[in-house]
Amino acid sequence: MPKYDANGLLSAVVQDAQSGEVLMVAFMNEEAVAATRSTGIAHFYSRSRGKLWMKGETSGNTMQVEELLVDCDQDAIVMKVTPKGPACHTGVVSCFYRRMDGDRLAPVDSNQSSGQKSGTEK
Amino acid sequence: MPKYDANGLLSAVVQDAQSGEVLMVAFMNEEAVAATRSTGIAHFYSRSRGKLWMKGETSGNTMQVEELLVDCDQDAIVMKVTPKGPACHTGVVSCFYRRMDGDRLAPVDSNQSSGQKSGTEK
Repeated sequence: MPKYDANGLLSAVVQDAQSGEVLMVAFMNEEAVAATRSTGIAHFYSRSRGKLWMKGETSGNTMQVEELLVDCDQDAIVMKVTPKGPACHTGVVSCFYRRMDGDRLAPVDSNQSSGQKSGTEK
Repeated sequence: MPKYDANGLLSAVVQDAQSGEVLMVAFMNEEAVAATRSTGIAHFYSRSRGKLWMKGETSGNTMQVEELLVDCDQDAIVMKVTPKGPACHTGVVSCFYRRMDGDRLAPVDSNQSSGQKSGTEK
């Protein structure tokens, strides 16, 4: 059902099913979507390596897929997952651990990892 | 600071700053990132139209940018926004209003629009 671009890819956003935090963004091709759906474990397509890739195949930090959402024009996916460990290869929960701050990258607030904004808790 | 691919693009995930719901996914080029940062309003690059595009330029449903997060390899952005209206051109809050269910697309649960999973509230 999803539609792939000229390179046979679509954008996939991985979101923690519990916290709502965006954990990572990657690309999927038709094979990655099929593998994800048949196994229930998140698979992607690596543009740099030119091949199918199961998240956690080396680290063990696989992601169990709870739900796959498709956008209006069917060229992007949100994958709601329960991760077995950190999403990022650097060992942090989410790959999005820095924010743009002027001309530098600054760490995000520690409450970021809850996936929620909070004006009161710091 | 962000890194762009061979086509000069990166993936941008738009997330509601309050609810954490993923509203849309689009592409940005360097010009879109610069316009977003200078105006505080979300801009993207339209691959189909081949040009810079301010979200809401026709609908009025602009998005005020609260925070821009960059991932570990700096080729994807999460944009936390306060939207002025529905993100989707179909008039719904999020473009991700359908989930894959077997070989069809089904509406997501109504509690989806809160951006949170809830086992108790239905």
